[in-house]
Amino acid sequence: MARYSPSIQRLINELASLPGIGGKVAQRSAMYILDMPQEKADSLIDAIRNARQSTCRCSICQNFADSDPCPICSDSTRDTKTVLVVESPRDVSTFERTHEYKGLYHVLHGVFNPLTNKSLEDTTLSKLIERLSQNSDIEEVIIATNQNAEGNAMALYIARLLGPSGIKVTRLAQGLPMGSEIEYADDLTLLSALNGRITLS
Amino acid sequence: MARYSPSIQRLINELASLPGIGGKVAQRSAMYILDMPQEKADSLIDAIRNARQSTCRCSICQNFADSDPCPICSDSTRDTKTVLVVESPRDVSTFERTHEYKGLYHVLHGVFNPLTNKSLEDTTLSKLIERLSQNSDIEEVIIATNQNAEGNAMALYIARLLGPSGIKVTRLAQGLPMGSEIEYADDLTLLSALNGRITLS
Repeated sequence: MARYSPSIQRLINELASLPGIGGKVAQRSAMYILDMPQEKADSLIDAIRNARQSTCRCSICQNFADSDPCPICSDSTRDTKTVLVVESPRDVSTFERTHEYKGLYHVLHGVFNPLTNKSLEDTTLSKLIERLSQNSDIEEVIIATNQNAEGNAMALYIARLLGPSGIKVTRLAQGLPMGSEIEYADDLTLLSALNGRITLS
Repeated sequence: MARYSPSIQRLINELASLPGIGGKVAQRSAMYILDMPQEKADSLIDAIRNARQSTCRCSICQNFADSDPCPICSDSTRDTKTVLVVESPRDVSTFERTHEYKGLYHVLHGVFNPLTNKSLEDTTLSKLIERLSQNSDIEEVIIATNQNAEGNAMALYIARLLGPSGIKVTRLAQGLPMGSEIEYADDLTLLSALNGRITLS
């Protein structure tokens, strides 16, 4: 016999389709949702609907926001000469957490990845090119895609594309993370830390 | 400035309030929900609403089900002499997965836990007592609460409560899990495995 009734199984499947949520957590969450008071369930449903309705993509940086342009793009105190290119809106929030970066952003919404059928057209790369061609303020594009094969390929592709424009294109440093021990570093990280070594004196 | 817009932050908070879903996964899932096609979002909302509407608690075993009595309680091929007492509906599905246990269930929906303000009245223990007093078929109650302080306390409490009834009360065996290595076992598990040792010849 089936392990759960059809309607419960469907809820579990829907939850498990969200990224980072496995079967066990989906089951626990489904039981929790079935057990919660009605107003809490309504609030969950409303949060999903409301977030989708009141969120748009900023026409400048493509980040999710309640307004267009987004608060970062419309903040006159920010340095408009620098654009940090990231894969996802989460990466923007990660950089904002440091309170150090004062420039603007561009959210790609993914990178070219043949394994997941993600093409360049699925990203907002063309919007970045358009933005750079229309805005002569921008002097530097910092590419902060993830440090993996797809992220590196996308970084090189963008760098080659922007080569003729004269805009400076940089990439985040590769190396050992803060607090890490040499003994546990993987070979590629160690190699990039060695190649990117800096002069102390 | 805020890291996310209010409506996105609210969605992240709602998702993070589900059990087993931490901040990072809630952020990833929220972005995924914002990015998904409208019909997929509608389907997620509908799954939540539908599961809650079409699910009831079985009046016999208190498990979540689409019908009352649930398919297990109304299955005439099952052994009605044995009741396995578990903490959650997920535990029922775990036992059903083994295809070995053929008796009935009773879902407590939690155990007494002062740390989470869960009282005995929040569990379905009184329904179990009522069920046992009305049903003279039942010969054995197997307590399968979790092997932690709260689960053990609940097991002892139920055993003491049922003592005068003459119904046999058993508890799942404690010991080393299949495939485990002695070297990595914790002291309490090792001790219970030693105390519960079985005669081979």
